[in-house]
Amino acid sequence: MAVRLAYPWVIHSERGPSVDIATRVYNHKWKIDPIVRSLIDTDFYKLLMCQSVFRNKPDTQVTFSLINRTMRIPLARIIDEGELREQLDHIRSLRLSRGESTWLRGNTFYGKRQMFRPDFMEWFEGLQLPPYHLERRDDQYELTFEGNWPEVMLWEIPALAVLMELRSRAVLHDMRRFELQVLYARAMTRVWEKIERLRGIDGLTIADFGTRRRHSFLWQDWCVQAMIEGLGAKFTGTSNCLIAMRREVEAIGTNAHELPMVYSALAETDTELARAPYDVLSDWHEEHDGNLRIILPDTYGTKGFLDRAPDWLAGWTGIRIDSGDPAEGAETAISWWKDRGENPTDKRIIFSDGLDVDKIAELHARFSGRAKISFGWGTLLTNDFRGLVPDDGLAPFSLVCKAVSANGHPTVKLSDNPEKAMGPADEVARYKRVFGVGRQTSYAVEV
Amino acid sequence: MAVRLAYPWVIHSERGPSVDIATRVYNHKWKIDPIVRSLIDTDFYKLLMCQSVFRNKPDTQVTFSLINRTMRIPLARIIDEGELREQLDHIRSLRLSRGESTWLRGNTFYGKRQMFRPDFMEWFEGLQLPPYHLERRDDQYELTFEGNWPEVMLWEIPALAVLMELRSRAVLHDMRRFELQVLYARAMTRVWEKIERLRGIDGLTIADFGTRRRHSFLWQDWCVQAMIEGLGAKFTGTSNCLIAMRREVEAIGTNAHELPMVYSALAETDTELARAPYDVLSDWHEEHDGNLRIILPDTYGTKGFLDRAPDWLAGWTGIRIDSGDPAEGAETAISWWKDRGENPTDKRIIFSDGLDVDKIAELHARFSGRAKISFGWGTLLTNDFRGLVPDDGLAPFSLVCKAVSANGHPTVKLSDNPEKAMGPADEVARYKRVFGVGRQTSYAVEV
Repeated sequence: MAVRLAYPWVIHSERGPSVDIATRVYNHKWKIDPIVRSLIDTDFYKLLMCQSVFRNKPDTQVTFSLINRTMRIPLARIIDEGELREQLDHIRSLRLSRGESTWLRGNTFYGKRQMFRPDFMEWFEGLQLPPYHLERRDDQYELTFEGNWPEVMLWEIPALAVLMELRSRAVLHDMRRFELQVLYARAMTRVWEKIERLRGIDGLTIADFGTRRRHSFLWQDWCVQAMIEGLGAKFTGTSNCLIAMRREVEAIGTNAHELPMVYSALAETDTELARAPYDVLSDWHEEHDGNLRIILPDTYGTKGFLDRAPDWLAGWTGIRIDSGDPAEGAETAISWWKDRGENPTDKRIIFSDGLDVDKIAELHARFSGRAKISFGWGTLLTNDFRGLVPDDGLAPFSLVCKAVSANGHPTVKLSDNPEKAMGPADEVARYKRVFGVGRQTSYAVEV
Repeated sequence: MAVRLAYPWVIHSERGPSVDIATRVYNHKWKIDPIVRSLIDTDFYKLLMCQSVFRNKPDTQVTFSLINRTMRIPLARIIDEGELREQLDHIRSLRLSRGESTWLRGNTFYGKRQMFRPDFMEWFEGLQLPPYHLERRDDQYELTFEGNWPEVMLWEIPALAVLMELRSRAVLHDMRRFELQVLYARAMTRVWEKIERLRGIDGLTIADFGTRRRHSFLWQDWCVQAMIEGLGAKFTGTSNCLIAMRREVEAIGTNAHELPMVYSALAETDTELARAPYDVLSDWHEEHDGNLRIILPDTYGTKGFLDRAPDWLAGWTGIRIDSGDPAEGAETAISWWKDRGENPTDKRIIFSDGLDVDKIAELHARFSGRAKISFGWGTLLTNDFRGLVPDDGLAPFSLVCKAVSANGHPTVKLSDNPEKAMGPADEVARYKRVFGVGRQTSYAVEV
């Protein structure tokens, strides 16, 4: 073998230049470094839902608003308004790139080619995100987006990612280079130890759902790569389209609360309101089959939603449990399938709320064999820096960006956890009555 | 501020491209990557001693030999002979570069300019290291170097560094990329936690002495940079000339056992032998002053050496404790200075044997204020991967490369620890008699 010199100390890797995260963060100190650099640096289900909305409700006027559920984090004191505007402006300068469009048009999602229809792709290729409205209110920012639903909805993930990462950068700003490197060394070790525990769980199926509250883009990208190596076939993919494309893994996701929330806000009578969540799934049923037919039942209470569901819904592939006690939610779903004459072992249950390794191991042990079990692991995969800096300044917190109104009507979310409820009090009361939701148990919303 | 784009994900830093160590190690799997890339990737004291030898004993014929004191590590089974030869051949292809020569000629060492004389520099600029002799003997390598002392002596550090790093690479070879990254994350965290402890010690003075048994070059370079950031003025520099040059810190070192060992082997009578260690220091005294006048007393027993030392030696700046019980060695030195009418608080004691943070803290607490205290921290700074891979395959071990003969006479080392003794039994007995060394306490030699 010949001696091939490698002066100077330049790094090579199989997939292009490698990234030293600590150095990168260090560099944030002296230049503006865009956080979101692609319109597909977003969750896959946003694009699926966007296509559905583009087809079914393209002209609905919606308002999305940023809500910091962890008020003790004074975002407006931590994050500079000028920097925030620069990042948001940068997102508005983004257009779908040729390579991204090719990937979306040519890729197979859940075994299906041409998941995205030509008319949607043409629209997406011409898309610029609409203007934003930013105001400081005391120690928080009021950040809202108004316009046509298909455009406005695509602000959710990049807006959250920008806020989360600007907060990380602000906290890291005064740390020195090796302090930073050791901080990331500790965080990497922690993620790896979690992966090593998950590796020991037979039959595990898990995906990354951590885009929206990630520590940073590069960190999420690192976590995904670590999962690829550490978990092999147990890791089924990521919700992040850009990372899925770059790392050549599956893009994962189905649908979210915004569909029933907006459909419900548009309902003109209580009868229409009661039917709205099923209308959503009826539209979805027409568009998708197989693994994309996943019920998200908790927007207005899981129990009542399932009790009143039409029979065709019991034929769907699975259910996603995103609030309340996850074991209770899964038991409810299993009973419901049995009542409707379905075999739960043919069904998939996806857990996606506030997961970490202990809870994953516990839920897997309890439900494995009783149904097909998957996990969508979010914030505590891509943002577990708890205890790593003074005053726990990098601990994750609960930031959301939600549809708050549709065609002038406020939206409402009840969820299986009253701590996650949203909407004006009178509307919340009306929805509780229409959907028959009684007293609910509270669960702390940490992430 | 303008948004400056930084596509693609390329890394910038103040001092050139940054190094992702794990990626680098990963890359070792498919190409030969030279370990020693410069003739000054060596300890500073080798160059100081080389200049002294070049002036005083240029024609002495010496043999240096590699000795693995940790026989349970079967180096020849771990390291491929072909790869070892390629690395050694590469070292023979090295010449002093223009920039390195400029740095040696122009730099200030211990406050003195032109530490290296023009005739020595001219010789060094033309130097190619002499041939090596490599044979496998069972599970160990017999690696020897023969020729003129000034040339042969410069093989010691690169030969050790090559063996140590090939062993690291062999152990890491089957690890995957993120496993490697997490391994380094853990090692970084460990070094940083040591640095944080050292930061808390008031008045500490510490240098890196870890070249010869480092895990790898890049790792030593990382450790030095971490010390620069983490310890500030408490970190006084590194023994490694290349790293001192690149990182702009002091090159540190004075002299070592090879001088008294070779001088002693050349002695023709017992009287000459008894005087030989003092002849070394007499030659050194003529060449150097100030901080370079550091006594290394333990080659043939510290106690007797100091008792029989001429008075001018008590006027030297300090002493280096490199074997035996370090506290006992320091107490011996302090008493000796007092006996000779010197004030120990004006003197420097340098500890350099098998140090780690606990021992450093303990010695500092005990001797601080009684003398000027410094630490030369070696293997457990630059090679503490204990417990980080299965079977502890990266634990440091005791590899040395020593002068074993001079002009055909075997060399002898007694040290203050019989475990570190070297030489034929009859010669060891003769030296013990001549230097009045009685029973010695054994200390385990770990690193």
